[in-house]
Amino acid sequence: MKVHVGPVALPELEAAVVAGGAELSSAADASALVWYGGPPEQFAELDHPGLEWVQLPSAGIEPWAASGALRDGVTFTSAAGTYAQTVAEHALGLMLVGARQVHLMARASRWAKPDGMRGVHGSTVGILGAGGIGRALIALLRPFGVRVLAVNRSGKPVDGAVATWRADDVEGVRELLAESDFVVVAAPATAETAQLVDADALARMKPGAWLVNVARGSLVDTGALLAALDEGRLGGAALDVTDPEPLPDGHPLFQHPRAIVSPHAANPESLLVPALARRVEENVRRRLAGEPLLGVVDRAAGY
Amino acid sequence: MKVHVGPVALPELEAAVVAGGAELSSAADASALVWYGGPPEQFAELDHPGLEWVQLPSAGIEPWAASGALRDGVTFTSAAGTYAQTVAEHALGLMLVGARQVHLMARASRWAKPDGMRGVHGSTVGILGAGGIGRALIALLRPFGVRVLAVNRSGKPVDGAVATWRADDVEGVRELLAESDFVVVAAPATAETAQLVDADALARMKPGAWLVNVARGSLVDTGALLAALDEGRLGGAALDVTDPEPLPDGHPLFQHPRAIVSPHAANPESLLVPALARRVEENVRRRLAGEPLLGVVDRAAGY
Repeated sequence: MKVHVGPVALPELEAAVVAGGAELSSAADASALVWYGGPPEQFAELDHPGLEWVQLPSAGIEPWAASGALRDGVTFTSAAGTYAQTVAEHALGLMLVGARQVHLMARASRWAKPDGMRGVHGSTVGILGAGGIGRALIALLRPFGVRVLAVNRSGKPVDGAVATWRADDVEGVRELLAESDFVVVAAPATAETAQLVDADALARMKPGAWLVNVARGSLVDTGALLAALDEGRLGGAALDVTDPEPLPDGHPLFQHPRAIVSPHAANPESLLVPALARRVEENVRRRLAGEPLLGVVDRAAGY
Repeated sequence: MKVHVGPVALPELEAAVVAGGAELSSAADASALVWYGGPPEQFAELDHPGLEWVQLPSAGIEPWAASGALRDGVTFTSAAGTYAQTVAEHALGLMLVGARQVHLMARASRWAKPDGMRGVHGSTVGILGAGGIGRALIALLRPFGVRVLAVNRSGKPVDGAVATWRADDVEGVRELLAESDFVVVAAPATAETAQLVDADALARMKPGAWLVNVARGSLVDTGALLAALDEGRLGGAALDVTDPEPLPDGHPLFQHPRAIVSPHAANPESLLVPALARRVEENVRRRLAGEPLLGVVDRAAGY
């Protein structure tokens, strides 16, 4: 099998192709393409009738679906699941930062214990959109003896959660919001999840609870969140993603005493590339062995 | 058994005494004293010939040993082990903050990803002084697939560590320093552990590694650490304890780009009292049942 890595020929990914057992080639000769470093609009430049499989570098495929590049006759695989561990680790870090008020410690220039420090141990953690990241987070939380509540699209019970509700079960979602000390947003960005956490949802959260968003900024109403943080009823918000994104310089969320902004850094480049390389190697190996590929894109579902 | 709680009669601890099966009394009538809220110098005010047992509120007992209050004829018990879960949770939080550079994010007023972000997953974690806190930290780290290296006084293998060296095994300690992505200091403060992490130890640490101190400030040479941080070879330092403590206002460690100072907050009051109350209840129950007390102080060892 001949594989091209492009439009940017990242050496780590080329090495993964070779480690998986395939041969590197020009785009024109390749039956498989490992996409890296360009927008989907550039796909036409590398596409050709002999192309059978394209490995995409991201977990979400919204821009690819929107661009129309996901053409028939080619199998597309996303990197879904590849980064779940990395993002879950970041989410746990943000939960601990909120619980222990580390953002205030980081900003201080004098020795003073912040008020309101608490523990993650023994708390209740609600996960809105418990997919791959949610499962990875539940695994990390196991030694903390937490009670996990989950919401997902299907309502199919999530391992490690004491309750799982369907996303359209209004009462279930309200129960999660009311009982959780930490509400972690990890759902995909779709029309249904836009502004999922709005003023009403924020008002239903437990006093002192922390909101952690590692999904997409569009899932949280920024204005409503800022009002809720100013009011002081919530513990705070830890946001890896925001709306708008990037936040403008000096936006009040940056230095808000009840907020910590992580600039879409849950899956940093330094960790992304090795994780993607592992996925590329595994999928190349699978392709050569005739085994099912990981992360095959379902065009109809949009992920 | 008559027990006095003082010099501050904290209701939560008085309730624990009663829950353990003993009777509350004045200091003069008590055969046991649960110490809370005063320095060891005040001990003489509550001491009397009928006193048999004193439960101290802290895990470390240096000020008690230094004050000479640990007199013969009385059994002293510390709170060692009581706070291990809480402190380990804080230590993991500080590791994640360092790995993901959350201290820099917390200080920022604009959207910019810090350099040098990394993961805890798959890293090597060295624990200097792997006692109760170390064991609790290893339990929290289990889902991260880390490699744990440990040093303790006895060299007795620590569960979950791939290697354990005796504290006086110079080569072993050097191996831990050289291989660890995170060096967590969790040893008691004794004459032997003073300035355990000095300029030489810091120079032996892996480039980019983070130092996390949740033990006592005296275990790390502050001047040498600051020099090492300025030099930029280390990833950084997350310090819950410092020397001197408190750090003076505006000390360069507070806003150092490679440091986060947590003001001796790993075991915040809000979590300390419930944990201490559980220990008091358990030790009162044990005393009444003639069972061995938890945390009996070894005057010779100094903890």
